[in-house]
This record gives sequence, C-alpha cells and structure tokens, in this order.
Amino acid sequence: MKSSMQALVAVLALGACASSGHDSARDTLPSWNDTDSKKAIVAFVERVTNKGSASFVPVPERIAVFDNDGTLWSEQPMYVQFAFALDRFKALAPQHPEWKLKEPFQSLLAGDMKGFAATGEMGIAALVMATHTGMTVEEFNQVATDWITTAKHPRSRKLYTEMVYQPMLELLAYLRANGFKTFIVSGGGVEFMRPWVERVYGIPPEQVVGSRGKLELEMRGGKPVLVKLPVIDLVDDGPGKPVGIQELIGRRPIMAFGNSDGDLQMLQWTTAGSGPRFGLLVHHTDGAREVAYDRESRVGKLDKALDAAKPYGWTVVSMKDDWKVIFPK
Amino acid sequence: MKSSMQALVAVLALGACASSGHDSARDTLPSWNDTDSKKAIVAFVERVTNKGSASFVPVPERIAVFDNDGTLWSEQPMYVQFAFALDRFKALAPQHPEWKLKEPFQSLLAGDMKGFAATGEMGIAALVMATHTGMTVEEFNQVATDWITTAKHPRSRKLYTEMVYQPMLELLAYLRANGFKTFIVSGGGVEFMRPWVERVYGIPPEQVVGSRGKLELEMRGGKPVLVKLPVIDLVDDGPGKPVGIQELIGRRPIMAFGNSDGDLQMLQWTTAGSGPRFGLLVHHTDGAREVAYDRESRVGKLDKALDAAKPYGWTVVSMKDDWKVIFPK
Repeated sequence: MKSSMQALVAVLALGACASSGHDSARDTLPSWNDTDSKKAIVAFVERVTNKGSASFVPVPERIAVFDNDGTLWSEQPMYVQFAFALDRFKALAPQHPEWKLKEPFQSLLAGDMKGFAATGEMGIAALVMATHTGMTVEEFNQVATDWITTAKHPRSRKLYTEMVYQPMLELLAYLRANGFKTFIVSGGGVEFMRPWVERVYGIPPEQVVGSRGKLELEMRGGKPVLVKLPVIDLVDDGPGKPVGIQELIGRRPIMAFGNSDGDLQMLQWTTAGSGPRFGLLVHHTDGAREVAYDRESRVGKLDKALDAAKPYGWTVVSMKDDWKVIFPK
Repeated sequence: MKSSMQALVAVLALGACASSGHDSARDTLPSWNDTDSKKAIVAFVERVTNKGSASFVPVPERIAVFDNDGTLWSEQPMYVQFAFALDRFKALAPQHPEWKLKEPFQSLLAGDMKGFAATGEMGIAALVMATHTGMTVEEFNQVATDWITTAKHPRSRKLYTEMVYQPMLELLAYLRANGFKTFIVSGGGVEFMRPWVERVYGIPPEQVVGSRGKLELEMRGGKPVLVKLPVIDLVDDGPGKPVGIQELIGRRPIMAFGNSDGDLQMLQWTTAGSGPRFGLLVHHTDGAREVAYDRESRVGKLDKALDAAKPYGWTVVSMKDDWKVIFPK
C-alpha cells in the first residue's frame, strides 16, 4: 500500500498545475497491459484535452464518476458495508435484548444467514437502520473510521482498504492530472465512505455521492448536532445514480466507470449526453487473482449492463487480460 | 461588470497554483474599507493559511459557505427566484385555463398580490410546483438560463446578475486564492442557481447547495431524462442548511457568510466546530446605495441572527460603513 500511495502522491504533485494540456501517455497507467482497454482510455483523454481537437472539453466539464464496490475495491464475498453492518450489529446487540425476539435480528444473532436472507429487503433495511442511525453524523464518522482502519477481509486477511484496485488508483490519478474532477457514485452509504476515501482514493468527501438517510438538526447542550434518522432519503443505485449525480454534481459527467447492473443507468445517463462520452465496465474475469463472476452473481451481478456495452460503445475491461496487477503491492 | 470580471479572472489566475501559503493583503479586497470587518477577515485567513500557526488549516479543510440572496446579490424588493416564478407563471398561463378557477392562481392572474399572500405557504408551494416541475432538468436549465440573461430588476432596470455585491466577488476570489473551496448554500432552488453561478461567482454547479424537489429517471425515445417531480425534497433554509451542507459537502465548513435569520443555523453549525471558525453577517444598512432593512423586513429578516452575532463572536458587516462600493462598475 505504501509504495502505491507514494506513486499516487508523485503523480498528483506532477499534475497539480496541469489543469490544461495532457500528460504523456508513456509512463501512464503502469499496471495496465497495453491492450485495447488502456488504448481506449488514453485515446479519449488525449482527444478531450487537446485544445486543437474538435472534441476538446474545457476543464470544468471534465467530470468522471466511479462506482465503488467492485469498481474501485473488492465486493466479494459480500459488500464491505454489509460486513461493517454485521460487526456493528454484534457490538450493539448486548444493549438490545429486544432483538432476541424479532426478525431479522433473531436470525442474525443465531448466525442463521439463510434465515436472514429470507427476511428480504425489509431485513436488510432493518439491519441498516439498527446499525447506521440514531446517532450524530460525527459519532457515525468515528465508528466507521475505527472499523475501516482495523477490520480485515475474511479471506485475504488484509485491510479492506488494501483491497482496492491498483490499476484504478492509477486511472484516478491519471484523470486528475489531466484536469478531471473525480467523483464516487456508489450504492454504498455516503457517510460510510466519506471518512476514508480521501486517504485511499484522493477523493474528498464533497465528491462522494452515495445512498443516504434523512438528517435532522438538533440542539444538544446548546450545540447543534446532525442526527441520522431511520428514514431512507436516496438509494443511489440503478436509476438512483443519475438522480444522485444531478443532486450533488448538477451536471452530466463525460466519463463513467462501473462494474454491475447497478451502474447501467449511470453509464446510460453519462454516455447519452452530447459531445465526447466514455463508459467503461470492469468485468471480473480473474478467478485466480480475484474472483470471477458476472451474470449469476448475487453480489455485483453484471448481466444487462454487459449486454448493453456493445450497442452503447462502452469499453469492457477484462481484469485477467487488461490488468498486470490487481492489488497494490 | 466587465472590468470586475477581468479583475476576478486576474486574481484567479494568480491564485491558481497558490494552494498553500497566502496572498499579500495589500491589494486584497479593494472595495472594502479598512475597517474592523475587513481586518477580521484578513486576520482569520492569514492565521489559517500560515503553516507556522497553531491555527493552520490544511487546504482540503478550507471550506467556505455563502448564502446567496442578500449575501451575494440583492434580494429586495423580492427574492429574484420569486420574480422568475411570476414571469414563468405568466408565460405558462395561456396553456392552463384551469388556473382561472383555483387559488393561488386566480389571485396571481388578477394581479392581486394581497390575495396571493393570503394563500400563505401553500400558495407559494403551488406556484413553485406549477413553474418549476413537470419538465426535465435540461429543459428547466434552458428556461432559467434564458430568463437570467434577459430579466431586469424592477427598480434599477439592471440585469439581476449585475446586482451582485462587488466586495463579495472580491472576497470569493480572495478566499479561493488562499486555497479555500467556496460553496453557495442557499434557500433558493439549486437548479435555478446552477446555470449561472459559475459565470457570475466562479462557483461551479457541484459547489451549489440549495432547495430541491425530487427527481425521477425516465426513458424517453430510448434516452434517459431526469424529470422534476412536484415533491419537495429539501428546504435548504434555517435548520435545513446544515442538513444540505452535510448531504452535499460532507464536512463542516470553517467559514460561513449569511445575512438573515435563514442563515442562523448555518453560522451556528459552522462556528460550533473545533479549531478556528469564522462567521459573518452582511447587515443591510445602506438605504442610499441599496436598501436598509433588518428586524422588520418581510424578505431577508435579520433579527435572531443579529442578536446571536455578539455571543457567538460573528463579524457583522455594515454595508454602509464597510463597503466602498456595492455593485460592480
């Protein structure tokens, strides 16, 4: 992790004042094989940053949006935020004896994941409400920060933040060096991501779009606090992604990166705009170095969006063939 | 307008790479008199940008939020967006014969503003729904752009965008030159502001927080569109301002600028954080050059927030005494 972060910082420093013009492509994206995917990315970036090109895009309009789970970091065997919710549930259970008597908590306490799955969307919603609400945003920020800096992936035993994709870190830095503003647009909770994405991806909190609950201002001891209410405000997934983009960014991106059917509408919305547009899907094809999954997967299902790639002209990255390395060294 | 925009561009160009360190205060804020208000602003900025200072604030945390109506531009005799809604109502009325039969439209069609006022908040909501929803975000963007580039202030006969405050334009540029990210946080509609604030204030659409309605993604002729629904999603005023700040920015600002009781909670939220904090109220004291109003005003009432300024340690700008000029030349 450390050496890749240093490389990232170096690229950022080089790019800090390069808000126009474009980087040399020679040493760009070192973890990408020299295949069609890399060529398509570089060709697009050179086209929109070349002042002489008819496809030139001014810096303020260079907005690039990235899904998080499965696009910037691993989402198998379960969404990281789900692992967080389960750990949080266990930590809170002793204070909630009433959970023993009602679903989906009963199943979860018994470690019965099939029973939990049978409670469906309502069960997931109840788990999210029980673990993500009823506290202030600053309290939740602290809980999320504590968890993400210590929790380990069940198989690799690495920190989750070490299971980000090195080629995507390079891509984020490459785009920023070419005047792009990079945003996360994730189905994950916005308050869960904001505490760590700046350190890990170089993306500041104000450039994170995610699912969210309602907030309410209260005065406590003469001081204002923002309390997380158990009311869903936006599910930033599928058709919710263009909504989240419009609410928080207010203009249509020119590049969009995803990996699942939850990103279909984000890629459609991005690439349906006028002028040069770029859509890309990360296809999890590497069972040896990561996990191979697509159409039948419970997590990160890629089916309709994969079929849409060809008619829409989106680039499909094969992790096996296009990436030299998957994770930071 | 032209010369002030040129000055702004010059300041921005100078500041583009000055993400750390601070500007010389010598030629800073030329439209501000050398009074306590200017001194307080400059002293704060020098303190948080001085690397040797215990109060040093890293660039990513230099977030400054500005109310719009009455803080960056004139809000008298009525909020500009209300003038927009009335013009839009008149333009749409011929397509809506049913408006003749129901309030608040009946009163508006008869030019009976007292009758309209009597319909209260429901009347205002109905007017907003009738004029701001039922179209795509791109259609609304075009309508707002067309209006703002032609509509004139009823008294000055100037474009509304010429009735921005020159000292505040300089302040925005000064803060950005010192590594601040400047945001608008307004009770006005976010979609109404985004089409023109980049050109006028140098604030991009993704740095605008405002009131908003719900959006819905639809496919029309095989293309995705976002439709503005007649459902209020956030009233970004009063206690809604800290909510909007958290939703869109995700961290607490260190400077906040407002002018009315609608900004009270934004200033409280901003200045209640730990570390150096700065709150400022623009007090409309200049009846000769603008309009003098505060505690009794129907628009932009400043009463509770003015009382709060002293205990909270906020700076209160007297437009009459602190500003050399009000509007751009």
